Amino acid sequence: MGPPVSASTLVERLAGMMGSRVTLARAVLNQHGQSEAYHACLPPDVVVFPESTQEVVETVKLCASLHIPIIPFGAGTSLEGNTSAVAGGVSIDFARMNRVLAVDASDMDVVVQPGITRKQLNAQLRGTGLFFPIDPGADASIGGMTSTRASGTMAVRYGTMKDNVMALEVVLADGRLIRTGKRARKSAAGYDLTRLFVGAEGTLGVITEVTLKLHPVPQAISAAVCSFDHLHDAVDTAIAVIQSAIPVARVELLDDVMMRGINAYAKLAYREAPTLFFEFHGSDAGVVEQAEAAQAIAADHGGGGFEWARAPEDRSRLWRARDDTLYAGLGLRPGSRALITDVCVPISRLAECLTATRRDADESGMIAPIVGHVGDGNFHMLILIDPSQPAEIARAKALHGRMVARAIAMDGTSTGEHGIGLGKIGYLVDELGEAVEVMRGIKSVLDPHGLMNPGKIFGGGQV
Amino acid sequence: MGPPVSASTLVERLAGMMGSRVTLARAVLNQHGQSEAYHACLPPDVVVFPESTQEVVETVKLCASLHIPIIPFGAGTSLEGNTSAVAGGVSIDFARMNRVLAVDASDMDVVVQPGITRKQLNAQLRGTGLFFPIDPGADASIGGMTSTRASGTMAVRYGTMKDNVMALEVVLADGRLIRTGKRARKSAAGYDLTRLFVGAEGTLGVITEVTLKLHPVPQAISAAVCSFDHLHDAVDTAIAVIQSAIPVARVELLDDVMMRGINAYAKLAYREAPTLFFEFHGSDAGVVEQAEAAQAIAADHGGGGFEWARAPEDRSRLWRARDDTLYAGLGLRPGSRALITDVCVPISRLAECLTATRRDADESGMIAPIVGHVGDGNFHMLILIDPSQPAEIARAKALHGRMVARAIAMDGTSTGEHGIGLGKIGYLVDELGEAVEVMRGIKSVLDPHGLMNPGKIFGGGQV
Repeated sequence: MGPPVSASTLVERLAGMMGSRVTLARAVLNQHGQSEAYHACLPPDVVVFPESTQEVVETVKLCASLHIPIIPFGAGTSLEGNTSAVAGGVSIDFARMNRVLAVDASDMDVVVQPGITRKQLNAQLRGTGLFFPIDPGADASIGGMTSTRASGTMAVRYGTMKDNVMALEVVLADGRLIRTGKRARKSAAGYDLTRLFVGAEGTLGVITEVTLKLHPVPQAISAAVCSFDHLHDAVDTAIAVIQSAIPVARVELLDDVMMRGINAYAKLAYREAPTLFFEFHGSDAGVVEQAEAAQAIAADHGGGGFEWARAPEDRSRLWRARDDTLYAGLGLRPGSRALITDVCVPISRLAECLTATRRDADESGMIAPIVGHVGDGNFHMLILIDPSQPAEIARAKALHGRMVARAIAMDGTSTGEHGIGLGKIGYLVDELGEAVEVMRGIKSVLDPHGLMNPGKIFGGGQV
Repeated sequence: MGPPVSASTLVERLAGMMGSRVTLARAVLNQHGQSEAYHACLPPDVVVFPESTQEVVETVKLCASLHIPIIPFGAGTSLEGNTSAVAGGVSIDFARMNRVLAVDASDMDVVVQPGITRKQLNAQLRGTGLFFPIDPGADASIGGMTSTRASGTMAVRYGTMKDNVMALEVVLADGRLIRTGKRARKSAAGYDLTRLFVGAEGTLGVITEVTLKLHPVPQAISAAVCSFDHLHDAVDTAIAVIQSAIPVARVELLDDVMMRGINAYAKLAYREAPTLFFEFHGSDAGVVEQAEAAQAIAADHGGGGFEWARAPEDRSRLWRARDDTLYAGLGLRPGSRALITDVCVPISRLAECLTATRRDADESGMIAPIVGHVGDGNFHMLILIDPSQPAEIARAKALHGRMVARAIAMDGTSTGEHGIGLGKIGYLVDELGEAVEVMRGIKSVLDPHGLMNPGKIFGGGQV
């Protein structure tokens, strides 16, 4: 942060605009510097709660004039320190910009403010026959999901945020307001700025409106669960399901360690073996056809106890177990925190990557459950650590580093859906080499003074 | 182009590298300055036919050192003058870089050189159980389709090039070679450079490799055709089909003028009324279910004579008629050329936009058939003109301008799938305003001397 005179000027002017929606309270600052993962708390100097795009524009202009960093903040559920204030500055919390601005049922789209969470959005869509399918597990904000290019369990059927954001309103580093696209389903008009800001983690501008595609609520939904003796059989089943063009809505893999955590956490009695959770969307006849086809494939790969759940309450129970993996995982070692990481590899390499990672984790002596969106080749590992033990953190980081290196060596990516944040900076150049210089060039043009969420993606962060 | 000494140096050095694959032949130059639409021929000074990425790198480095423009060239099927050499320079023709470099059937992806056409690619995929679905009508090159963010008839089911390009190898303006991504199905690692180059029309770099998603060949395909008394009934049927979540693979609208052209061109006897062509992909049972559901919706909207075609030869006949729309359209006025344009609007506005455009065209006295990828809200108009009559060209351009303004006013885009090229430059700022300045900023960082396909998207083009 700049010299004290600027700081007091800043707070004074912010308060002049937003009154009590500007806070210096320590607890609030700390909450905004914290993440759900193991990263150290790096609090901002001020948190503001704007209620309009205009207030965001004015905040950004003020920060630009005083050379003060800006960190957009949604629900605080990111996992790579994506909202940590490495150089202090102003955290713009979008909690009060969480309205649905327009739903168009005919066009199957919606315009929202960035602070709305995905569950809030789906609650408001009830009765329209439409829903927003992207589900990263946490009840993340749409702005945050946009900025980290989130995906989650249903990406295999409905795509990621990259595929479901149609247009954005963005405040640039100098306070200019742009709109990246119209409401047409597709466009070939100039550079794809929408996709440039999706996944930019707030380092190129502050998102103030998001236009999203919606999808028809399927006529029928069914779910199924199926366990395997070996991890690779579960993976091979998932791959075969995808390749046979079954339009599966979700196919999640939970390894034996994760199943143990879930049984303990949710008081369930699933077999503690590698397990696939399926969900099928379609017509009444369609979901039966899909589930039968998947069951036949699972049986070919030694899958046992294929258990269907067509009633909503059975499905909910099943998926609640899946959604609670973070807390279920932490329950395997009470008092621990988790280094949560994800990689994504071509699915032909997934069994090999998963098996080697499972073995590596076991040999390292860490408790590290694995859960994967295996239809995409994407999986997560939660490495449980005692944050007071530096040696343990170092061992966890080394295990993590080997997992990422393994994925990159298999033509995969260092992060399938969490973003680079602070946690993956060291791996970005390993993955993309000279292309990172192009990213830096774009950053330098859009944020010449390095004030937009400094320190993320590229490191550094001194302003 | 630079002073003569540079020019002769350039040709000499290019010939030293590529021998007879460097040409100054007038016919070849003219062919590379021409497009399939009405734009005037603007030939390059030299055409080269590289056979490797290394030759492209060397060509770009040479041009950069001599300050000479570079225009990448695929199959020459673009429609907005996207490959015209407005400032002369070197056209890099990828005809000899048209190999499939790797197919991975498990991962359902393929790495190709940019010169391969979509039909060549699909021919080589035969027997793998996979296909590449993006079909813009013309047998365009994959590099060209990538650069114009092409889509076409199957985008409603399989997405556009934006959704199907996984990664690119690109030669930057200074000769550096980058790779924009790995082979993972998704990634959250840094800025989405892949999507930045998709649709950049060669103005940011030269694409030398494309990694594409493939899709399983459906178990069953069926097609259907159905005519309507009124344009808006056909559009409403298409919208209702999309909204009811029928996963239709294609839904094409041909208006009465277009049907007249097709009957005459292909010696068919379809009713000369607004007509929908459908295609359904899925399981044997699935395509029947889809077609029956679509038929019921069409009947609700007054659709008549719903005619199914499940045998491959019937389907081919039906779709050949659709694919020939450009030539069938030109046949309505022998000796004419076409101003071919496309817009895309939210589907809720499609009936209104189409009807108003049809009326405007009729009132203008131009022959202008309309064909649309109506599932996306995207439609094309072919305005038939005598290119020797300036007054007629002016009238066509005015009609075109009103169509684009109408689409933008309805929250749509000036181009759904052809790109900006030369033909749409005047409309880009109308559509996206200040965002165009961000595009210019990105261009200035990646191509500081304005040598990459100058004059496109932003206008200008003097180097």
